[in-house]
Amino acid sequence: MHFTSEQRFDDGVLEREFTLGEIPGILWTPGSASASAPVPLILIGLPPLGLHKVYSRVAGRARFYAAEYGFAAATIELPGSGERPRLAALEQARADLRRAMQAGEPIGDEIVAPLVLPLVDLAVPEWRATLDALLELPEIGGPVAYEGGVISIGIRLAAVDPRIAAAALFAGTFVPAAMFEEARRVTVPLQVLLQWDDEANDRQAALDLFDAFGSKEKTLHANLGGHTGVPQYEVDAGARFFTRHLK
Amino acid sequence: MHFTSEQRFDDGVLEREFTLGEIPGILWTPGSASASAPVPLILIGLPPLGLHKVYSRVAGRARFYAAEYGFAAATIELPGSGERPRLAALEQARADLRRAMQAGEPIGDEIVAPLVLPLVDLAVPEWRATLDALLELPEIGGPVAYEGGVISIGIRLAAVDPRIAAAALFAGTFVPAAMFEEARRVTVPLQVLLQWDDEANDRQAALDLFDAFGSKEKTLHANLGGHTGVPQYEVDAGARFFTRHLK
Repeated sequence: MHFTSEQRFDDGVLEREFTLGEIPGILWTPGSASASAPVPLILIGLPPLGLHKVYSRVAGRARFYAAEYGFAAATIELPGSGERPRLAALEQARADLRRAMQAGEPIGDEIVAPLVLPLVDLAVPEWRATLDALLELPEIGGPVAYEGGVISIGIRLAAVDPRIAAAALFAGTFVPAAMFEEARRVTVPLQVLLQWDDEANDRQAALDLFDAFGSKEKTLHANLGGHTGVPQYEVDAGARFFTRHLK
Repeated sequence: MHFTSEQRFDDGVLEREFTLGEIPGILWTPGSASASAPVPLILIGLPPLGLHKVYSRVAGRARFYAAEYGFAAATIELPGSGERPRLAALEQARADLRRAMQAGEPIGDEIVAPLVLPLVDLAVPEWRATLDALLELPEIGGPVAYEGGVISIGIRLAAVDPRIAAAALFAGTFVPAAMFEEARRVTVPLQVLLQWDDEANDRQAALDLFDAFGSKEKTLHANLGGHTGVPQYEVDAGARFFTRHLK
């Protein structure tokens, strides 16, 4: 992990861009973080839009977690997104999705699975390698939570990596049928966000997914509005969920 | 409104029992409340079990709101509950419900409407009279929120009384079909609690009710577990919802 830039904000939060091999990412740590007082970590999963496009939203959340709740937060660019090399299979799957949507066809698993599963297969090992590197930093302790992004990546990561102690997931992207089985193997405390009128996401499928999770403690927060309308107060609700489970 | 007892706790909260005509109730005010710094008010609706039976749970919430967030909180006994005179029509409706449940029959609107609508018709004017009296106290200012209890009472009260600025409702009791129309007339910010595995409440009906509310800002918090299993952290989530809308 190489740090390529750093910036200290007025609220004490340190923002550092890094690369891990070919993966670009950003790490935010609170002013209070030090080798003698390491802090818990929140991994922020991105949508497949490119880090630059979602920077202000993600950095706003990360700095809030750091400044108000004393968490470190980190994010990495998804495979095939932003400045990273395009992946032919993903580009094809996205083209197939666009074509189906424009034609008004139902979006079935034959569209969703090729769109999501290869991304999960690539992204989860990258997240785990990033987590290895982050946990070597003396100012970061643990436990670790995951939030945001492509929900299937969060499901796989929470199911396979025992270092993930809690997850706040956004039910805002297509979930392949195969991921429902993996959801049953997730047992950490969960907070699941659902936009009640999400144009791009089926409400009943999201409720079925919430039902499928194996976790004993799981909470669904459904808010009125479309895909991009997650209310600002859910950031605070997320921070309080993490505080219950990471501190 | 006559105060019949008072008790000051270590956290500064003052608990006063009162009667308003034949209605017994309890008012909690924070140590900080005074005529010069009146505080917002949360009305806590009870289940039809009698105040004594639910006192510790309700007082725990009320004292948390008062001590941690500086709200006043008040509750009143429902018509036909606790020490109040039994109401023949309600007793009959409850007997019909018990019989239907024991027989394993589906609980339709012909059971639910006589059970709930007379209670709503009686309780809502009592709440409004209580609110009149509470708002005359110099230490209570406003705005006012409603939480808890028989959800149909909260729906009617929020729909008809413009002093109710926000409501946190527990979708844990039967809702007559007629109340879905009234729900459409509720426009204040809402937080709706749903127990995902509530033995006594139909999940789909609760989701349909959430959908029916006319409010532009509404959030559903669904938690795993049965009717009595609402997690403790939802009290804090409620307090933060009220803080957003009452302060």
